[in-house]
Amino acid sequence: MEGVDHLADERNKADFDVEQMKIVWAGSRHAFDLSDRISRLVATDPVFRKDDRTMLGRKELFKNTLRKAAHAWKRINELRLTEEEAYKLRFFVDQPAFTDLHWGMFVPAIKGSGTDEQQQKWLPLAYKMQIIGCYAQTELGHGSNVQGLETTATFDPKTDEFVIHSPTLTSSKWWPGGLGKISTHAVVYARLITNGKEHGVHGFIVQLRSLDDHSPLPGITVGDIGMKFGSGAYNSMDNGVLRFDNVRIPRNQMLMRFSQVTREGKFVHSSVPRQLVYGTMVYVRKTIVTDASIALSRAVCIATRYSAVRRQFGSQNGGIETQVIDYKTQQARLFPLLASAYAFRFVGEWLNWLYTDVTQRLQVNDFSTLAEAHACTAGLKSLTTSATAASSLNLQDGIEECRKLCGGHGYLNSSGLPELFAVYAPACTYEGDNYVLLLQVARHLMKTVSQLDSGNKPTGTTAYLGQVEKLLQYRSDVQRAEDWLEPNVLLKAFEARAAWLSVACAQNLSKFTNPEDGFQALSADLAEAAVAHCQLIVVSKFLEKLQQDIPGKGVKQQLQVLCGVYALFLLHMHLGEFLSAGCITPKQGSLANEQLRSLYSQVRPNAIALVDAFNYTDHYLGSVLGRYDGNVYPKLYEEAWKDPLNESIVPDGFHEYVQPILKQQLRNARL
Amino acid sequence: MEGVDHLADERNKADFDVEQMKIVWAGSRHAFDLSDRISRLVATDPVFRKDDRTMLGRKELFKNTLRKAAHAWKRINELRLTEEEAYKLRFFVDQPAFTDLHWGMFVPAIKGSGTDEQQQKWLPLAYKMQIIGCYAQTELGHGSNVQGLETTATFDPKTDEFVIHSPTLTSSKWWPGGLGKISTHAVVYARLITNGKEHGVHGFIVQLRSLDDHSPLPGITVGDIGMKFGSGAYNSMDNGVLRFDNVRIPRNQMLMRFSQVTREGKFVHSSVPRQLVYGTMVYVRKTIVTDASIALSRAVCIATRYSAVRRQFGSQNGGIETQVIDYKTQQARLFPLLASAYAFRFVGEWLNWLYTDVTQRLQVNDFSTLAEAHACTAGLKSLTTSATAASSLNLQDGIEECRKLCGGHGYLNSSGLPELFAVYAPACTYEGDNYVLLLQVARHLMKTVSQLDSGNKPTGTTAYLGQVEKLLQYRSDVQRAEDWLEPNVLLKAFEARAAWLSVACAQNLSKFTNPEDGFQALSADLAEAAVAHCQLIVVSKFLEKLQQDIPGKGVKQQLQVLCGVYALFLLHMHLGEFLSAGCITPKQGSLANEQLRSLYSQVRPNAIALVDAFNYTDHYLGSVLGRYDGNVYPKLYEEAWKDPLNESIVPDGFHEYVQPILKQQLRNARL
Repeated sequence: MEGVDHLADERNKADFDVEQMKIVWAGSRHAFDLSDRISRLVATDPVFRKDDRTMLGRKELFKNTLRKAAHAWKRINELRLTEEEAYKLRFFVDQPAFTDLHWGMFVPAIKGSGTDEQQQKWLPLAYKMQIIGCYAQTELGHGSNVQGLETTATFDPKTDEFVIHSPTLTSSKWWPGGLGKISTHAVVYARLITNGKEHGVHGFIVQLRSLDDHSPLPGITVGDIGMKFGSGAYNSMDNGVLRFDNVRIPRNQMLMRFSQVTREGKFVHSSVPRQLVYGTMVYVRKTIVTDASIALSRAVCIATRYSAVRRQFGSQNGGIETQVIDYKTQQARLFPLLASAYAFRFVGEWLNWLYTDVTQRLQVNDFSTLAEAHACTAGLKSLTTSATAASSLNLQDGIEECRKLCGGHGYLNSSGLPELFAVYAPACTYEGDNYVLLLQVARHLMKTVSQLDSGNKPTGTTAYLGQVEKLLQYRSDVQRAEDWLEPNVLLKAFEARAAWLSVACAQNLSKFTNPEDGFQALSADLAEAAVAHCQLIVVSKFLEKLQQDIPGKGVKQQLQVLCGVYALFLLHMHLGEFLSAGCITPKQGSLANEQLRSLYSQVRPNAIALVDAFNYTDHYLGSVLGRYDGNVYPKLYEEAWKDPLNESIVPDGFHEYVQPILKQQLRNARL
Repeated sequence: MEGVDHLADERNKADFDVEQMKIVWAGSRHAFDLSDRISRLVATDPVFRKDDRTMLGRKELFKNTLRKAAHAWKRINELRLTEEEAYKLRFFVDQPAFTDLHWGMFVPAIKGSGTDEQQQKWLPLAYKMQIIGCYAQTELGHGSNVQGLETTATFDPKTDEFVIHSPTLTSSKWWPGGLGKISTHAVVYARLITNGKEHGVHGFIVQLRSLDDHSPLPGITVGDIGMKFGSGAYNSMDNGVLRFDNVRIPRNQMLMRFSQVTREGKFVHSSVPRQLVYGTMVYVRKTIVTDASIALSRAVCIATRYSAVRRQFGSQNGGIETQVIDYKTQQARLFPLLASAYAFRFVGEWLNWLYTDVTQRLQVNDFSTLAEAHACTAGLKSLTTSATAASSLNLQDGIEECRKLCGGHGYLNSSGLPELFAVYAPACTYEGDNYVLLLQVARHLMKTVSQLDSGNKPTGTTAYLGQVEKLLQYRSDVQRAEDWLEPNVLLKAFEARAAWLSVACAQNLSKFTNPEDGFQALSADLAEAAVAHCQLIVVSKFLEKLQQDIPGKGVKQQLQVLCGVYALFLLHMHLGEFLSAGCITPKQGSLANEQLRSLYSQVRPNAIALVDAFNYTDHYLGSVLGRYDGNVYPKLYEEAWKDPLNESIVPDGFHEYVQPILKQQLRNARL
C-alpha cells in the first residue's frame, strides 16, 4: 500500500490552486522555496529522526539533542548556509536545544545591549560557538516582575570588578534554557549597586563554566531544574538553576549600551535612548505570534487529515461509515481553528511590517508609535498563544482541541499531538504571562480613552476609538444571514463591541477615588476588554489582507470564507458582549450563526487542500494520524510494536510481582 | 524550617469550621474516616512513593506499577480489608494499573452479563486474582460506534465452540487497559454469527495467555500500543492491541445473561430485560462524575495553596510583594474552578441517589425513569469531564488552567499538574466521547419537547420543560446585584435559558423535511442546548443541597457563596444565550458580574480552608507547589537535583558532541 494516496479524492475536491496558496501561506515565493528546501533537507537526514523521541529517558533524550545540535552545526558549515537558512534548519530539526537560547537570546542580548566594543569582543566568539551562552533573567521567586529580581551586582572600586551574588534561595536563577548543563556563559540580570546605591536591573556577561573541562567556575552552583510537562517536548532542553556566591567579573562585562558604571563607580546613562529595549520586545513577541500560527496549523493539519480518514457511525446495512469530518460538530470545532491558523499567520505578517516601521522610526528618534506598537504586540502574543494552547481566555482550545478531535488515538504519542501540546504550552507563560500582558493592553486602552476628551487622536490599532461616540450608537443593519459576509459589517460590529467594553471599563474605573484600586478591582473586566481589542486587530488585518491582490484560482475566495469563519465564530462565542453593547440584536446574532454553518459547508471540500497549503513534511508533522498519504491504521499498528514494553513477551517484573499472585494459595481477604 | 506552617495565617482567616466541611465534602462521617485512614496508610508506605515516577523510562515505570499492584494486594490481604477499603487503597495508590480494569471492568462485566452459572465459575477465580482480566471492546477502527465492531464470534455447531476472529487490521482490539502485557483473560466484544446470521455484538470470555508461562495462546497476537500523553501518567498502564486468528472457545464462554446460543446454534433472548445494560452505564458514568470532582479539586488545591505562597509585583520600596491570590484576575480564574469542584461533588452525590433509585426500579421492572436517568448521567459525564480537563466545550479549563495559574513552575513535573492533566485528559473520550454524549442528551431533549403537545409530562431533570410556555415568557426581576443571590432567581434564569435553547433547536429542526438531516445540520447548536441543560442540573442540585440541614459554623454560608460563584460565572460566560433568550437584560447581566466580583472577595479569606477541606495528603496531591505547609521554594530547589541529568557535572554526550564545537577551528559558515 506504500505510495497510495488515501486522501487523493479529498485533494481532487478542492476548488482552488493549492500551489498558489502555499506561497500565500509562506508569505513569498522566496520564503516558500527556502522552507521547502530546508525542511526536505532535514526530513531526509537520518540523524534528525524524531519518531523515537518520546520513548527516550531524560539522559538519552538530552544526549540525542546534543547529537542533533552538533550535526546541525556540521551541516550548516558544510553547506555554507546563510543565517536565514541556518535558522530554518534549526527550526525544522524541531527539538528544543541549548542552541535556541544561544542564537535567540544570548547573541541578541549582546547585540541589543552591548557597546560597540563589547560586541566586537563577544560576538565573534559567539558566532563561532567558541563560547555558548544563555539568558539568565528569571529567578525561583521572580518571573513577570523583572524589577523584583534579587540577584545583586555590586561594584567594587578597589578591584574594578562587579561582585555577582545570590543573596537568598529565591534569588536563584531558575528556568534559563541551556543553562543547566551546557552554557559556558550567560547574560545575567541583576540589581546594580554602586557606592551603596541601587540603580535597577542590568545585564552582565558572566562566564559559568571552564572552557577546559566544563566544570563550574568557583562560586557558581549550576544544574538542571528537572523534568517538565510531557515526554520528549521541552525535556530535551537543560533549563537550569544557578546560584552565585560572590562571583567577580571585570567591570567591562556589564552590558553598557544604555547605562555605564565608570572606573570610579559612578552610574551614568548613555545618550542611547532606552526605548530601544521596547523595540526588542516587539521583535520577540512578533516572532511568537508567527510561531503560534505554525503550532496551531500543525495541529490542525493532523486533525483535519485524520478527520477525513476516520469513519464512525452513519453506515446503513453494514456499509461504509461516515468520515468524521462530515459531522457538523466536528466542523464546528475544527474549522474555526483552521481559520484561526490563517488569521494568526496574516496578523503575524502585519506585525513584521509593524516591526520594520517601528525600527525605522527608532533610528530617527521617533518614539510616537512605540507605546501603541508595544501594547499591540503584547496583546497579540497573549491572544494567539492562548488560542493555540488551550485556554478559556478567548474560548478557543487550539492544539488540545485538535487532539480531542482525533478521539482516543490522539492520546497516543504517535499522533504527535501530546508532544506538540506539551512543547507549546509554556508559550502562554514565557515572554510575558498572558494575563499580565492583557492588563498592559488594558492600561493602554484606558489611557487612550481617558485622553479622548483632551483631543489626543488615537492612532494605529486604537484609531477606531477616535470614533467612540459613533461606535457606541452603532446598530448593525444585517437583515439576512449573508449580510454578515460584508467586510464592513463585520468590522463595525467588532469595533463597536471593543469600544463599548473599553468605555464601560473606563466608566466603572471613574467610580473609584484611587484609579489603581479600580484597576485592580476591575482587572477581570479589563482583560476582557483587551481580548476584544486584540480580536478586532486580528479580524481587521485579515480583512486588510483580502484587500490585496492575491493571485491563483480560487485562493482569495477561500481566504474570504476563512475570514468569515474566524470572525463569525468569535462573534458566536462572545455573543453576550455584542448584545450588551447593543450593536447587534439577538436575531442578528442568530443570523450570524446561520451564516457560520453555511461557511463550514464551503470549507469542507477544501479542508484537506487548505492544510496541504502549509506544506509540512511528514517529518516535521511527526504524526501517524496526520500523514500526507492518509495511510493511518497500518502505520499506527506498526508504531505500536516499537514500544520498549514489546521487546519481550513477558514483561520485566512479571515473575517477581504478578506470577506469585496468579499462583497464590493466599489466605483470602474478606472480599 | 520543617514543621513550620507557612500557610497558618491563611488558615486562621477562615470563617467556617473546616473539620465539618471535610465531612460535607466526603459525604458522610464514615466516608471521611475511611478516606482519611486509608490515604494515610498509603502515604506512609515507602513502596507507594511516586515522586520519582515521571523520571522513569517506560519499562521501569511499568515494573514499578507491577510492584505497587503486588504490594497493594499483599496489604489488602494482610490487613483483611473490606471491598470498600481495598477499593480506596488502590485509589490512593494513584497509579493507573491493570488491576483497575480487572476490578473495574472485567469483574463487573461478568457480574452484569454472565448467567448465575458463569458467575459461579469465573468470579471466584477473579476475586482471588488466579486469573486477571480486561475488557476488550474498542478496536483500531471503532470506538464510539460499538455496533460497528468488526471482530466476529462464529458458532461452530460441530464442536460446540465459538471461533473468535479478527477479519481486518482495523478490527484489531486497541486500547483495552491491562491487555498489553498482563491480562490472562478478557471479555471480548464481537459480532455474533450463528447459522450464517448476524445477531449483534456480544461479550465472550476468552483466555489470552498461558497460566503456566504467560505466553499468548495459539492464534493470539497481543502487545502494548505504545506510549501515551505525558511522562508517568497512563504509561504505567499496558493498553493493548489484540488480534485473533480463528481462536476457539467453548460455547459456555459467551456471556449469556441477556441472550443465549443453544447447542444447536439457535440465538434466543433470555427473559432478563436488556435495559439492565443501561443501569450499568449509569453506574460507570456516575463514578466518572465523582472522579471529575476529585481530579479538579486536586488541581484547585495545588493552585490555591501556591497562589497564597507566590508573591509578585505590588511591592512598594522593595517591601514584600503581593500574594498572587489577591489579584482579581487570579481569583476570577481560580475561584470558579474551586466552586465547580464543589458543584461536581454534589451533583455526583445526587447521581448516587439516582443510581440507587434506578436500580431499585429495575428490580421491579419499572423502566419509566431509565431514559431520563441515562441521558442525565451521559450529559453530566460530558460536562464535568470537559470542565475538568481543558475544553472550550463549556468554557472552563480545569486542570490546565490551574497549571497556568501556577505560572512557569506549573510546567515542572514536580508541580504535579502536568501528570494530573495527562492522566485525566482521556476522560473526555473514554466511556462515551463528550460530544457524542451531548448529542444523546440533545436527542432526549428534542424528544421531550416534541411530546409536550401530546400531554406527556416530562419528569426528573427535564420536568422544567413542562412549563416551557411560562419559561419562554420569563423575565428576571433583578434590580440590584445582590438580588442574584436569591436561589429562585438563579434557578429560573437557568431554566429559561435552557428551555429557550431547546425550543429554538426544535423549531429549527421542524424546518427540515428529514428530521435526521436536520439533526446533523444543527448538531453544533444541539450540543449547546445540551450543555445548557446539564449546567442547569448542576446548578439546581447545588441549590437543593443548600436546602439540606448542614451543620458546622459557617459551613452552609461558604457553600452558598460557592454556589453563587458557580452559577454567576456560568451566566457570565454564556451571557449571549441568556440575553438571546430574553430572560435577562444586559443591565441584569452586568449586575450579575458585579455580584460575582463581590463573591470572589468573600471566597478569598476562606480559600485555603476550602481546599484543606478536601483532606488530601501531600502524597496523594503529589505536588511541591501544593504542599500543605506551603514550604514551596526550598522543596522545589531540592527536587531539581534529583533529575538524572544532575547525576554528573558534565552530561553524557558533551565530550562527543559539544566540546568539538567549542574547540573547533572550523572553516566558518557564511554567518
